[in-house]
Amino acid sequence: MGGKEKIKALAAAAKNGRMSVAVDDVQNARDLSDAARAAGSRLEVLIEVDVGMGRGGVRSPEEAMTLARRVAHLPGLRFRGVQGYEGHCMLEPDRSLRIQKAGAAMDYLGTVTQRLAAAGFDCVVVSAGGTGTYDITGNHPGVTEIQAGSYVFMDNFHGNLVPGFSHALTVLGTVVIQHGNTLVLDSGRKSVGIDFALPTMVDYPFYQARYFAEEHALFDVDERCRLKLGDTVELIPGYAPSTVNLYDAYHVVEKNVVVDIWPIIPRGPGHCGLLT
Amino acid sequence: MGGKEKIKALAAAAKNGRMSVAVDDVQNARDLSDAARAAGSRLEVLIEVDVGMGRGGVRSPEEAMTLARRVAHLPGLRFRGVQGYEGHCMLEPDRSLRIQKAGAAMDYLGTVTQRLAAAGFDCVVVSAGGTGTYDITGNHPGVTEIQAGSYVFMDNFHGNLVPGFSHALTVLGTVVIQHGNTLVLDSGRKSVGIDFALPTMVDYPFYQARYFAEEHALFDVDERCRLKLGDTVELIPGYAPSTVNLYDAYHVVEKNVVVDIWPIIPRGPGHCGLLT
Repeated sequence: MGGKEKIKALAAAAKNGRMSVAVDDVQNARDLSDAARAAGSRLEVLIEVDVGMGRGGVRSPEEAMTLARRVAHLPGLRFRGVQGYEGHCMLEPDRSLRIQKAGAAMDYLGTVTQRLAAAGFDCVVVSAGGTGTYDITGNHPGVTEIQAGSYVFMDNFHGNLVPGFSHALTVLGTVVIQHGNTLVLDSGRKSVGIDFALPTMVDYPFYQARYFAEEHALFDVDERCRLKLGDTVELIPGYAPSTVNLYDAYHVVEKNVVVDIWPIIPRGPGHCGLLT
Repeated sequence: MGGKEKIKALAAAAKNGRMSVAVDDVQNARDLSDAARAAGSRLEVLIEVDVGMGRGGVRSPEEAMTLARRVAHLPGLRFRGVQGYEGHCMLEPDRSLRIQKAGAAMDYLGTVTQRLAAAGFDCVVVSAGGTGTYDITGNHPGVTEIQAGSYVFMDNFHGNLVPGFSHALTVLGTVVIQHGNTLVLDSGRKSVGIDFALPTMVDYPFYQARYFAEEHALFDVDERCRLKLGDTVELIPGYAPSTVNLYDAYHVVEKNVVVDIWPIIPRGPGHCGLLT
């Protein structure tokens, strides 16, 4: 967690409940400690460990030890354990390779955890995993918390990766052009995430889009398609995480009826969406 | 323009000024006519011609003629000319090939225009082009209007395609993780468009990002980089069109001072952003 304003907001939010934050830097730990003290709150700290992704995280057990010692002595902070996100395994389409890679990452996280415990730093929380490895990392001994989130919505990318979940998130488009065998929907990359996989139509799952432009989705259809100009079309996003932030609200649907509207609050800096 | 609500909104907006709409379908023309009559407004109509992109547009001069005749007889509509967007030439990186393809597309649009004129349908407006072909299509005889828009902001994709414009749109990120030689910014695919080209740092244009995750941009840096945890970083988007709609406002900057804040209104359905 970096950035003065964000740290301040985090420390303030920690007054309302238990708040954990992953840390991999001594100066960052100091900044968090200062902010928690100023806010009169306490932040729980997980040492972030790089388990192979090469993004955030300390890069050796020794660094983890050094940082844990510093965190333990800083007021306003409470050492709770480790976090090691194996994001480099998440996109692996070959499941046996994914199992092998995620297993190796968690074995390494276990090594770090044991080193910390031997020095008196018990890891109550060992947090890891995502939707792509929830059942692999979730079964690894020692792991106490799975960070899987995308399974709630699912999308074509995660659906191919981890079958067995339903699609709960769809985007409603309209047929705005119909010419020859081409259907054009008003749902392009500004409306629906296409990362890693293309969106598909719920009612016509066998068509693959020819192209997703910014404002348009192009489908070349055949005689099986009954859609006509002006019809609405339900789309399963290619990637749900990059779809949600394009909207201000969820429309909650039960049996084809909108039963609630939920605001999407954390869309961007200072944005309160429907709550303004 | 399809969808009952959108057509209604268009017809209402046409009461406040001259409004042109591209049409490629007889039923759509009828719907627009009905809506304009109901709103007491008038819509100017361009016949959309498919000049090779295979998206919207009539697919032969004969279809253009038939549609022009219908539009001329529908109340609330006024025939004004043709629109032929050569989007299939826009992404062509080889400039000589782009010139050749765009030239062929505009030759075809010219043929359609002449056929219409010979039947008494003078095309006052012949609209085409984009930022990638502004100087090619813009020099084509007969073309009266260029639809180029992205040149206003520019981005890495358009900048590579059409050199000579400045970058006016940037996104401000923060260094949230710094570990080893890796810098992580809080500006991922939810903050900055990466379509067709990756974003770069204004102050360090020689680094290419290793990866853009949803919430993170990863740069592996070397000794030339002076950035540290908590620093802000100005990024040039990979693709500006898909960046703007992620935000509620532009911060207008002159000589490093924010001199104005402009709302981004047409971000999504029913969204008024800062104007709510």
